[in-house]
Formats: sequence, structure tokens, C-alpha cells
Amino acid sequence: MAKDKKVAGPEARLPKGFRDIRAAELSATRAMLDTIRRVYETYGFEELETPAIEYTDALGKFLPDQDRPNEGVFSFTDDDEQWLSLRYDLTAPLARFVAENYQSLPKPFRRYATGTVYRNEKPGPGRFRQFTQFDADTVGTESLAADAEICMLAADTLEALGIARGDYVIKVNNRKLLDGLLESVGVNLSDHVARLAVLRSLDKLDKFSREDVALLLGPGRKDESGDFTKGAGLGEKQIAVLLDFVMQPKLSRSERDAIVRTAGFEPVDAFGDGLAELDQIGELVEKAGYGADRIRIDFSVVRGLEYYTGPVFEAELTFEVKDEQGNKVRFGSVGGGGRYDGLVERFLGQKVPATGFSIGVSRLQAALGVLKGSAAADVAPQGPVVVLIMDKGELPRYQKMAQMLRSAGIRAEMYLGTSGMKAQMKYADRRGAPCVVIQGSDERAKGEVQIKDLIEGAKAAAAIADNKEWKESRPAQVSVKEEDLVATVREIIARHGGAD
Amino acid sequence: MAKDKKVAGPEARLPKGFRDIRAAELSATRAMLDTIRRVYETYGFEELETPAIEYTDALGKFLPDQDRPNEGVFSFTDDDEQWLSLRYDLTAPLARFVAENYQSLPKPFRRYATGTVYRNEKPGPGRFRQFTQFDADTVGTESLAADAEICMLAADTLEALGIARGDYVIKVNNRKLLDGLLESVGVNLSDHVARLAVLRSLDKLDKFSREDVALLLGPGRKDESGDFTKGAGLGEKQIAVLLDFVMQPKLSRSERDAIVRTAGFEPVDAFGDGLAELDQIGELVEKAGYGADRIRIDFSVVRGLEYYTGPVFEAELTFEVKDEQGNKVRFGSVGGGGRYDGLVERFLGQKVPATGFSIGVSRLQAALGVLKGSAAADVAPQGPVVVLIMDKGELPRYQKMAQMLRSAGIRAEMYLGTSGMKAQMKYADRRGAPCVVIQGSDERAKGEVQIKDLIEGAKAAAAIADNKEWKESRPAQVSVKEEDLVATVREIIARHGGAD
Repeated sequence: MAKDKKVAGPEARLPKGFRDIRAAELSATRAMLDTIRRVYETYGFEELETPAIEYTDALGKFLPDQDRPNEGVFSFTDDDEQWLSLRYDLTAPLARFVAENYQSLPKPFRRYATGTVYRNEKPGPGRFRQFTQFDADTVGTESLAADAEICMLAADTLEALGIARGDYVIKVNNRKLLDGLLESVGVNLSDHVARLAVLRSLDKLDKFSREDVALLLGPGRKDESGDFTKGAGLGEKQIAVLLDFVMQPKLSRSERDAIVRTAGFEPVDAFGDGLAELDQIGELVEKAGYGADRIRIDFSVVRGLEYYTGPVFEAELTFEVKDEQGNKVRFGSVGGGGRYDGLVERFLGQKVPATGFSIGVSRLQAALGVLKGSAAADVAPQGPVVVLIMDKGELPRYQKMAQMLRSAGIRAEMYLGTSGMKAQMKYADRRGAPCVVIQGSDERAKGEVQIKDLIEGAKAAAAIADNKEWKESRPAQVSVKEEDLVATVREIIARHGGAD
Repeated sequence: MAKDKKVAGPEARLPKGFRDIRAAELSATRAMLDTIRRVYETYGFEELETPAIEYTDALGKFLPDQDRPNEGVFSFTDDDEQWLSLRYDLTAPLARFVAENYQSLPKPFRRYATGTVYRNEKPGPGRFRQFTQFDADTVGTESLAADAEICMLAADTLEALGIARGDYVIKVNNRKLLDGLLESVGVNLSDHVARLAVLRSLDKLDKFSREDVALLLGPGRKDESGDFTKGAGLGEKQIAVLLDFVMQPKLSRSERDAIVRTAGFEPVDAFGDGLAELDQIGELVEKAGYGADRIRIDFSVVRGLEYYTGPVFEAELTFEVKDEQGNKVRFGSVGGGGRYDGLVERFLGQKVPATGFSIGVSRLQAALGVLKGSAAADVAPQGPVVVLIMDKGELPRYQKMAQMLRSAGIRAEMYLGTSGMKAQMKYADRRGAPCVVIQGSDERAKGEVQIKDLIEGAKAAAAIADNKEWKESRPAQVSVKEEDLVATVREIIARHGGAD
């Protein structure tokens, strides 16, 4: 242990980009995940858990042309010198799982998964290096009905979480359209790095201004902290066409061709496939009763991942919140996905088309917090009843009282510290105890206990300045027989609307 | 991506010591964790989640006298060249959290946590490098009532999970007794490495024979695979005393002294404190109604962790199972813990006593599987209803049927593959579908659907050899009007005891 190593101990601190999560938030997260799980299971998805660690090559996270893992992932070597990495998302491990178990799986294979993913990236406000995703994927089908279903699933999930119709929209685009556009302006699609740089830059339009995205597409951009992001190196005309195109959600075929031609380029025909696929998805969701208020085609959806090969989705919350500068902005994306026909093929050499959707859990939870009022989201649940220690020789007696309350399903604890009455009351307050149980020698002699209602007591203390009598007429402290302890405590908890 | 790098794709495989977990097991785990959570909350513990990654020095996992992390943990360096590690347990991160937030926490601080921990150790059968723990700890009190409560919590948790009284026991010992014994036979307690080697060897008595443990305490031991474990280097007499001592759960003070003296050593007085503490815990649990059938003092409990400073606990399941050789053995330990008064002090320099208990989740789940019959534990939950695709032009119609079923709370999916009828039926079977919905052009013309009960159908198929008529008299397939689809499916699911 370190104490052998040095005299001063280590500093107690978390690495940058990581955080501790307390009980109130965890309880809200659990309720949210349970709702998502219920909807996903109704759609017939079955749960799968893969480990947090995979071989780096299985994640496809080696740097191009190098034998070192990508800097964006946390990596280390095994005993036998093979590179391992913490998973970056839940999709790459799914592809590994499907390839490894291909023969024995029902096909299509429909799985959902929730778990923590890790990004070795620069942290920022609200941007962590460990966070939770909730994914659903259908592997092994080319059918666009699978993509349509993913959109319906996303819409149903948001509504099940209490997000009203009109406050969200599931947007659908097609990567084939974007690739057609890139090809039209002369981007070499077989240069994966160049293509990805362009797509990632365009995907930033929901966060950055047109001017900033133009810098990312062109010479590069320096952010507020002075860090420089290398640009995609496109020319001014190329940039203008791309931005004119993706900033408009709706364009007819001829309008699109016109934008491309006006800038002196020639539109390629790859647009065609993408449009036909979008029409088919549109028809499927409409006939299943999902109107354009819930799921709609939107040419501005890009998504930053390279591996999408067809339809791409984005779940966007449309209600407004204030940003850091106090401006009203749409809440924005809480999830997205798309079709990725190449991921399993990497392993098997055989075509295994797939499509899926991923929710950013803490982002969605933040949205629910906004909708419910941020105050409500942070309220800690009611704490346990605390049995105070008035006489250290009587610990077994106090322990037994706590045990009686627990046996009745009431959260309760005996004070376990060694401090006096005042510190014990302060402890009970901090824990959010609805009441405390007190038994000194006088009460013990009579077989009684005092029960002090802390919530009522706090109200009385607040009111006491202008109404002294109020306290006397409604005392927050009662004496009851030991055998009435459980019933009295239960009554107090019920009075304050707490669950046992 | 790797496809740029090489022609052949990567192999789809998990690193050694990791595993994928399927839906049936995950669902059983979730039910178990919910029960544990409920009991822990009744005791007033509040949940805390810390991240999987910590600074290596915060985990106390540097190798003695070296600037490299211990080989037992997965470690990597940050951008700024500091060592990070995946957490090895949930206790070290708790100590870091308490030290970092000491001023603002209620004291004592009582938290529970469940999460994944990582061990960079040699995997083996049932021994994984990633697994889940469920911990409860009380930090900031010297009171032995906190230790007593941990034992009661452990007993209540096992009973809440359905383990009958008599099938488990919570054993309590005290590290001070063991240290007294070690000191009596001449082990230098200030040599932490030597002390830990002795304790870890003694802790193996539940898995290894006396002879094998004697080798570990002495010259070292070669296991079946030929790997050599270095021994603690004790002499024969020392080993004999230690083993005589800890292999007997009950010894009076004079019997203990006699064992030590007979071998020519002189017992030190440190025994005294430990015995008094055990008496006090014994009194507290007994008065709270926990007899020796549930919680009992047992001098054979060691625990392999160095940091314990006082009481140590072990939750043992006492029913018998067959081991790999077919011999009947006790199921054994499913959790343990103890008092660790030094962990927070490492950071703060100030004494912050603490005690806690940790459940090995998959080990406990395996035990519950044994109790419920291993067959029951592996039964997959009923799958979704599958709507078959008889006519690819009618996808929206089939999609809508699936949607109607889901709206009624029934798990349902439209077949999303592109294969024919036979493959679709096979798919429905693999998914464990209770029934399939079929609508060809004939049924569509009449506004009807066929519903085939797969469970009844399977029974009929099994019976058909000796009773052909049975199938005709109880057909597993019915035709109903489209508007009766939901009601009919619900009836079939109810008939087979499935939940919606």
C-alpha cells in the first residue's frame, strides 16, 4: 500500500471528466431506465450484456496505418502483449458478439443493452469520459421495416417517459444522400479519414454557427480555450454547397441539383437510392400511425460516426431551454443511430446488415429534469427514521427498536456515531429523517418512547416568530408506549406523503 | 478502421476471463439486486455510484517501493502521464469519496453501492476478471454496533432472497486475534507483505487441503497447471500452530494459549481486545433477536484483504453441492467484509474508522440457482408474439398488427428478416414466441388472421405419434377476426402462464 511508499498520503480526487453520483439522481436514473427497458421489451428486443473490456482490434479502434490504438479510447496491454480497450460504445461489442455466436443466434437478432462507455477525450462542461448509453439494434436484416421500427420505438420511448407529443421529433435522413452530395462536390469517398472529417464537421451544425462549421470544413478552427481543431481542407465553393444543402431540412430533387450545379459541380446519381429508402420508411411509419409530428424525413441529419451506410436517425427534443448565455435554444438531440451494414462483416467476411439506435442516458435525464422543473429533480427522497442513542449502555434496546421498524417495512437506523444529542439531531436532519425516536431513562422506566416529527418541527420553528402559540397547540413531539412505536411512526410518514 | 490495415478482419473473440451475459440471467440478476437494494435501504443506507476509473494512488495499488501499479489491476496513463486504474473493489473508491467530501457528509456516512470491479488476475473456471459486487459500508464510527448491524443486514438479505434459516450462517472473527496469533509465533506484523502472505494463505483453507495451505505458508506450492505460488516462508512449527488454531472454530482462551505454548512459543496479550470486541458484537446481535443459528463467532474466519483492522465477517451458505469431482461440499462463502479503520486516514491524515460488507453477486446468484434447481434458473422468459410476413407488399399492415399488440401491453414484433415461411416459424420458435400471427391473402380478404399457438402446437407434435386424433380435436391454430386479435393472443399467453 502507498503508506509504505511515502509519508504524505495521496490526494483524494477524481480524474478529470469523471463524477460521483448521489442517491437522488441514481434513483431517478433507475426509474427512467426501467421505463425504457419496458418499451424495448414490448418491441421484442432481448437484453444482452457484454463486458467493458474488449480486444482493441475487435473494437476497430486502431489508428490508421499504425499498431497503436486510437487516442480516443482507454487502452492497455494484456499479459500476452495484446491491446485491450474499454468499450467506446455498445455497437462495436454487439458486432463482436454476433460474429462470435452467429450460428446459434435467431436471425434477425434483436437485442437491447444498457451500460457504461468510456471516451479518452477532452472533458468539458456536461461532457464526461464515462457515461451510460441505452441501445436497441436489429442485426441480420436489410429490411427497411427494421429502420422504421427503430424510429417508432424511439418515439414510443420518449412518450412513455412523459415527453409530450410536439416536444420531440424523430428525424430520419440517409447517409447515401450525404455521400452523393460529397461525391458531387468532389470529396473522395474512399478516403475514409477525409470523409469522416467532413461528416463530423457538418454534424456540429446543431452546436456551432455556420461560420464555425465552415472553418471546420476548411482551414480549421481555434476554440475559446485556444485549442486548434484541424479542418477538413475543403474549398470555399465546396463548403458553400454542403452548408446550403444540409441547413435546409426540405429540398426537392430539382432544388438540390440546382444548389450543386450553381456552384459549378455536377450532381451524381447516388441521391436516388437514398430518396427511395426514405420514402419507404416514411410510408411504413405513417401507415403504423406515426405522423410527421413524431417521425419525419429531415435532410439536415448527419451523425458523426463513420460506419453508417444508409438511414440515420436523430431523436431531438424541440422545447426551448436557456443556454449558458441566457439565450433560448432547442434542447436538442438525446439519441440517434442508423444502419451499419459493415460492422459484423469485418469479422465474418459475410454481409450481415444491421440497424440501431442509442440513447444518451444522462442527456435524456437532464431533459426530463427540465420538463419536471429542475427543483423537483434534485429533491432527495425521504430519509430513514433515526433512533437516537441517549444511553450508551442500552445499545441493544435501541438496535431492537430500529429492527422493529424495519420488520414493518419502514426505513430505519440506530444512530451509529458516538456524539451527543445535538450532533445526533443534526445528523437526522442531514439524512432527511421524517422523525427521530428518543428514549432516555425516564421514558424507559415508563416503557415509553418520544417521537419527534422533524418535518412538522421545522415548520413550527419557521412559524414560531409570529405565532408562539401554534407550537404549543400542535406539538411536533409525542410520547407513546413502546408497543405503539411502529404505528405512530407509520402515521407520521404517511402524513408527510413518504413511502415506507 | 482495421479494414484499412489488413486484408483479413479481426477475430471475433472475448479476452480471457470476460463473458457475455444473456437475457435470462440478466433478468434473474436484476430481481436479486432489487431485493438486496430494498433490504439495504430499509437499514438506512443510501446509494452512491463512483466511476470505474480512479487515480492509481487513490486506490492504493502501487507496488511497494516502485512507481508502477500493482499487476493485479488494469492500469494506463492519462494525457498528463498520471497512472489511472480500473477499480479493484468498491471500498477504495468509497474511501476516496469520503475523504474528498468529508466536510459535507452526514457522519456516520452510510452508503451502499453496486457495480462492476476488475481484476487483472489469472482467470479460471468461475473466476472472471470483471464481476459485480454489492457493498454496504458505515464510515465514521468506532461503534461496534455498526459491525453488529452489518451482520444483521447480511442475515436479513440472505433470508429476503429466499435462503432458509439454517442454510446460511454469518461468521464473525476479529483480525486482532489473528494478529495476536501471528505475533505469538514470531511473524513481524510491521512487514505488511509477509503478514498479508500469511493471511491470504490461511484464507485458502476453504478451498485447499491442510497440506496445500501448509505449502503456501511454507516453501510454496505448484498448482495443477504447473504454476508456482511463492510461499510465506514460515517454519514447520509456526505452520502447525497457525493451522491448529484457525481450523477450529471454537477454542477457549486457555486452549488457545496451550496450542501456542506446546509448540514452544509464548502467547502475546493482543488476543484480549479482539475477544472483548467479539463478545460485544455477540451481545448486540443476540439481543436484537439473531441467534447463533444465524450469526456466530468463528475463529476460522480470516479474509484475504490486508486492510482489515478489527472484526471480520463471512457470509457462508451451509447447504451441500457437488464439486467438480462429484464430492459433496458446502456451497461456501458468498460475501464478506470487516472493519478497516485506516483507509480514509490515508487521505485525510485523520482517523476515520469504517466497517462494511460486500456480496459477490454472481456467486450468490449461482447459489440461488442451486436452491431453485439449476433448470429453473436457465429457463428463458417467454418471448414476444411474432407477426409473420406472408406478403412483402403488406409490411405496413403487419407492422400495425404488432403495434396493436404492443399498445395492449403485449410483447410483439413483426418478423424483420427476408426469409420464407419455414425460416420464420423457426425464428419464432428460437425466440420462445407463445404464438405467431399469420395473414395471407385469403385471410386478408375476409378481414381475418390465423393465430398459431406454438406451445400447444409443440405438445400436439410430441403426442401425435400415439394419438393422432388429439391434434384434430384440439387444434393449435385458430382463425379470428382482425378486431379479436388482441383478445385472442392475450388468452393464449394467459393459458401458458406468461405475463404480458
